[in-house]
Amino acid sequence: RLEEFLDGLHPADIADLLEQIDESEREAFLRLWAGDSVGEVLSELDEGLREDVISLLDPERLQAAVRDLDTDDVVDLVEDLEDVQKEAILDALEDVDRYAVEQALGYPEDTAGRLMQRDVVTAPEDWTVGQMIDFLRDNEDLPDQFYHVTLVDPRMVPLGNVTLGRMLSARRSVMLRDLTEETFIPIHATESGENVAYAFNQYHLISTPVVDDGGRLVGVITIDDAMIVLSDEHEEDILRLAGVGDASMSDNVMETVRVRLPWLAVNLGTAILASVVISQFENVLASVVALAVLMPIVASMGGNAGTQALTVAVRALATRDLTGSNMLRVVRREALVGLVNGVAFAVVMGVIGWAWFGSAVIGAVLGAAMIINLLVAGLSGILIPVVLERLKLDPALASGTFVTTVTDVVGFFAFLGLATQVLL
Amino acid sequence: RLEEFLDGLHPADIADLLEQIDESEREAFLRLWAGDSVGEVLSELDEGLREDVISLLDPERLQAAVRDLDTDDVVDLVEDLEDVQKEAILDALEDVDRYAVEQALGYPEDTAGRLMQRDVVTAPEDWTVGQMIDFLRDNEDLPDQFYHVTLVDPRMVPLGNVTLGRMLSARRSVMLRDLTEETFIPIHATESGENVAYAFNQYHLISTPVVDDGGRLVGVITIDDAMIVLSDEHEEDILRLAGVGDASMSDNVMETVRVRLPWLAVNLGTAILASVVISQFENVLASVVALAVLMPIVASMGGNAGTQALTVAVRALATRDLTGSNMLRVVRREALVGLVNGVAFAVVMGVIGWAWFGSAVIGAVLGAAMIINLLVAGLSGILIPVVLERLKLDPALASGTFVTTVTDVVGFFAFLGLATQVLL
Ligand SMILES: [Mg+2]
Ligand SMILES: [Mg+2]
Ligand SMILES: [Mg+2]
Ligand SMILES: [Mg+2]
Ligand SMILES: [Mg+2]
Ligand SMILES: [Mg+2]
Ligand SMILES: [Mg+2]
Ligand SMILES: [Mg+2]
Ligand SMILES: [Mg+2]
Ligand SMILES: [Mg+2]
Ligand SMILES: [Mg+2]
Ligand SMILES: [Mg+2]
Ligand SMILES: [Mg+2]
Repeated sequence: RLEEFLDGLHPADIADLLEQIDESEREAFLRLWAGDSVGEVLSELDEGLREDVISLLDPERLQAAVRDLDTDDVVDLVEDLEDVQKEAILDALEDVDRYAVEQALGYPEDTAGRLMQRDVVTAPEDWTVGQMIDFLRDNEDLPDQFYHVTLVDPRMVPLGNVTLGRMLSARRSVMLRDLTEETFIPIHATESGENVAYAFNQYHLISTPVVDDGGRLVGVITIDDAMIVLSDEHEEDILRLAGVGDASMSDNVMETVRVRLPWLAVNLGTAILASVVISQFENVLASVVALAVLMPIVASMGGNAGTQALTVAVRALATRDLTGSNMLRVVRREALVGLVNGVAFAVVMGVIGWAWFGSAVIGAVLGAAMIINLLVAGLSGILIPVVLERLKLDPALASGTFVTTVTDVVGFFAFLGLATQVLL
Repeated sequence: RLEEFLDGLHPADIADLLEQIDESEREAFLRLWAGDSVGEVLSELDEGLREDVISLLDPERLQAAVRDLDTDDVVDLVEDLEDVQKEAILDALEDVDRYAVEQALGYPEDTAGRLMQRDVVTAPEDWTVGQMIDFLRDNEDLPDQFYHVTLVDPRMVPLGNVTLGRMLSARRSVMLRDLTEETFIPIHATESGENVAYAFNQYHLISTPVVDDGGRLVGVITIDDAMIVLSDEHEEDILRLAGVGDASMSDNVMETVRVRLPWLAVNLGTAILASVVISQFENVLASVVALAVLMPIVASMGGNAGTQALTVAVRALATRDLTGSNMLRVVRREALVGLVNGVAFAVVMGVIGWAWFGSAVIGAVLGAAMIINLLVAGLSGILIPVVLERLKLDPALASGTFVTTVTDVVGFFAFLGLATQVLL
């Protein structure tokens, strides 16, 4: 019954199931389940769980499983494993596949060389449709999935892609080179995964050749793998913005603490900094307790406005909608937006502060601090990620903490500083 | 020279260029540029700019441009236009395309019906590879890009997909039905775009048929379009978490204010709520000014810890890694992580508070409030998005504001309340 149910599931769904049950259930599951999609399930599985699951599998079953995988999936599987497990898997491969996997592992992590599949369907540039179809019919060892025939010169430099659809609808006598696609973007093996995903999404690629330093074909990347990279890069951005490292639902309590505590510690440091600023104004706080009541509003509004500007900037940097050519205009826009919002909320808060504490002066101080802080929020929201990017750092990397530090410090300083001037 | 440069650019890059220059440059550009990829450029362009650019184009040029587009791109183009512009474009289409576009527009926004392309390559289930190839060779009107032949029964119900690669490598006498792919997932026309993108990413689909209520084929969705939806859904999540609506780099100041001000107003309301809580403790604040200095630390740590838990939960809901089957375990985990982090930072802050103000009691109050607030932060970070999801609301929708409201209110209440008990 379990077997029947699982046989109807896609390996990706079985992997999800394994991720969602707890450790003891996982062990029981792997003891009972004898399905033949172990390899696919492993390659769909969350990286954090693979070592655990692999160590629960019978070695022979594991080796049979990986022999069925495409080389790109083997690379993805072994790259994060410990050496013993990695060796066991590499040993299971046929020589030609092992060579392909080891060559891919020679490229840096998160590059096109790691994402590519070694099996590419190529043809000399002077072949006709008929020659190509005959070649494909006679070839036993084609990749599971391919979408183009890549034309190459004698040195294996790729010259163009022919989609299978155009080839199928052409006469046998047509030259392949007369059918090549207009958009053809070979990718260098050391290009980052992020750039690969960008190119696929921007140019609507389906598959594209990967080349080495000499411009020679070494593999092919297909869009299903680029889509996964796109999704992973997004996950990295959204989690980093929140100050969370690589997180998974199957992490246990201590793994989760390890991922979250460091940025909370950084945040503690910055919160203490804000408190030090406040402590400079103990006199005015002691004499006008209303200030202690109102000061978090200035900080909170600044933090929110800063986070808005920051998030828009981080996303636009990731999609390359924010570049050198519109940078100045966007910075100016953020400053103006901060000012307009600042004035709007200054009026509202000025009136509320006045009504609440019966002091027009407190209302005015609150309003002025609001304008200053929302202006600073807009500027730091755009400038912090941009500067991080220029420094070749990830603009998403906990820039949320930096921005709220700025808005806390400036908010408290502006509000309490102005209050000291006019109230003491 | 401009012409030559632009002819070398992909339409998506020309669209980016149009987005990044300012309004007056855009007008000049459109006056000078006479390239023939206007249709593609429009469909790559940011939705916020399309109306502006369309109104700058010569009507005849616009009509010629849209006649070249696939029907799915025409649908994407016209769906957000005002009626006059929409009519002008629909009028330019041939009858059969116009019918396809209008049928797609009949489906709700953000559904498979809107994403699909009408031209599908189909075959009766009893055809051979040879029959299919002959059919394709004789057919003048094939889609630009197609990756499968979809087998259909006489009622046009899709039965399976044959990838072109397998077809090309099979003998002419092989039956198409013996070559169908294992993973075959027709999608209903009213399925949400989010679910479409999920299915493509989860099951590594390249193209998949779209069916109506009767299960009959009405179109096909290809992965390049699903990838764009995936990217758009990411953008929606990350922006909504920050309390930003649909934002674009080409928005001007007032458009940006309109998108950001509403959530700042909500945040103002919640910040005032926190201030009301603080104002209940004016007595203790007036007598111990150290409390005003330290209280933002408790709120800030809670806000950060809550945002961490929240972001992880929103992302896991989007990728369906957080479901009914692991919900309880994850909620328990978040509570425990909050406790562990709370105790860790309670010790640190207890010591710092003691050392700074020379009062062990203040240190103890600070530590206790920290534990309470980080526990509440973890729980609200996971429960708020989960409850929003159960209510069929978007879990990302400004839940950041809700979570920080909870941690501000609880943080101030716990810290000042405890202080009142032990210090007054
Ligand atoms: Mg999974
Ligand atoms: Mg998944
Ligand atoms: Mg794969
Ligand atoms: Mg990997
Ligand atoms: Mg692959
Ligand atoms: Mg990255
Ligand atoms: Mg990144
Ligand atoms: Mg773009
Ligand atoms: Mg664009
Ligand atoms: Mg649209
Ligand atoms: Mg399309
Ligand atoms: Mg959506
Ligand atoms: Mg969503």
